[in-house]
Amino acid sequence: MSGISWFDTIRVPYFLVDVQGRMSIPQLMTYLIYVSGQQTESLPGKSAEDYGFSWIIIQYELEVKRLPMIGETIETETVAHEYNRIASYRDFYVRDQSGDLLLSVTASFALMNEDRKLARIPKELAEAYGSTYTRKLRRTPKPTVDADQGFDATHEYRVRYFDIDENGHVNNAHYFSWMLDTLPHDFLKTHTVQSGNILFEKEVRADEIVQSAVQLEQKEGQNISRHLISCKGEERAIAEFVWEKA
Amino acid sequence: MSGISWFDTIRVPYFLVDVQGRMSIPQLMTYLIYVSGQQTESLPGKSAEDYGFSWIIIQYELEVKRLPMIGETIETETVAHEYNRIASYRDFYVRDQSGDLLLSVTASFALMNEDRKLARIPKELAEAYGSTYTRKLRRTPKPTVDADQGFDATHEYRVRYFDIDENGHVNNAHYFSWMLDTLPHDFLKTHTVQSGNILFEKEVRADEIVQSAVQLEQKEGQNISRHLISCKGEERAIAEFVWEKA
Repeated sequence: MSGISWFDTIRVPYFLVDVQGRMSIPQLMTYLIYVSGQQTESLPGKSAEDYGFSWIIIQYELEVKRLPMIGETIETETVAHEYNRIASYRDFYVRDQSGDLLLSVTASFALMNEDRKLARIPKELAEAYGSTYTRKLRRTPKPTVDADQGFDATHEYRVRYFDIDENGHVNNAHYFSWMLDTLPHDFLKTHTVQSGNILFEKEVRADEIVQSAVQLEQKEGQNISRHLISCKGEERAIAEFVWEKA
Repeated sequence: MSGISWFDTIRVPYFLVDVQGRMSIPQLMTYLIYVSGQQTESLPGKSAEDYGFSWIIIQYELEVKRLPMIGETIETETVAHEYNRIASYRDFYVRDQSGDLLLSVTASFALMNEDRKLARIPKELAEAYGSTYTRKLRRTPKPTVDADQGFDATHEYRVRYFDIDENGHVNNAHYFSWMLDTLPHDFLKTHTVQSGNILFEKEVRADEIVQSAVQLEQKEGQNISRHLISCKGEERAIAEFVWEKA
């Protein structure tokens, strides 16, 4: 596969881990976006902003073998393999010191113009990352939530001042926090994410009130959580996570 | 003054800044504690944990000339100058690339034993940081809040799963977020902290509901915000911040 790889190595600091000392999913996602930002900054030529665009994330798919632990040195590789008219696909691989893969994440990025509408990805912009153009749109599996089934818990979160980043958006990592925090804390302590799929449908803005609803189901020995983020009944993001006993 | 200095240099990443691109106070405090943790890790000999103790923060005093901006390279120096029976005083100095001081923070640390009671600071532990013993307890000014005056706003925050760090405590940085988020967001956008003083009285535990109340007063052209954090009417932390127009 094509694409230029970018690497970053860190020793996992205390502020990226949960009460178990494992890297927390919200903080992991914050960190990964930081690493892809490093690559963007390193590139010469025009940036998305030079076109009047900004990158947004549409979807994440996660596969986790083991979450990095506090104090552990990890290496992250990121590469934007391919793009089509509307999406750029970027993979992240997090490895331990022996080079073994701990987890991988695929993120689908899109470009938003100044009217907050999707824009076609300029060739020059994508190719700076070594991405290959493909005509095919990927058919990534979508998470499913059936609202008719009812929810096991619904929590409300008001968007806080410090949830808004420099681009004026709620940082995507907060969605993970809103979603996962609705699970029973005893469940979170005793389980770890095996895989996850989150689809961002419409952005949450400053001062909005978020309803985060969760369904927790057991199926063939697996625990699956399904999540719906909405504001005043309007769907903003859905997700599902598969869990195993820690 | 005595004490061994520890230095860390970073380029301010996107996830430490607010919507204005300035380093946010909560994230600044997270980062500073990370830097002091680096020094602790670098030291040979026994750690607080080896004594069955853990460090807690009792008070912060901040003086801010200018907050670091996204993408700016800053150098942080930290040094634990002195200690007495119950407190160790650690200073942080954040400088820009020309070596000009941007802000300074003094943190008072104490040791908690396994019964969550204050413990006397062992000589050997403090001296590893080059700290000098002093018999005098410092008389640091305390923030004041007069609950009888009423509050301009009170917000409720439930402690989230990811607010709890590996030590089982709410990371101190979240108190800053609970406090400052109660201010009108337009005020936060147009003002910047000049100084702050926060006193932690009793810890907030997992699953508690936090009431964060604020008084905003104008006095001789200065804006002062006074903050009270409580759980079920029990005081947990108080603070005051002085603000100027950004």
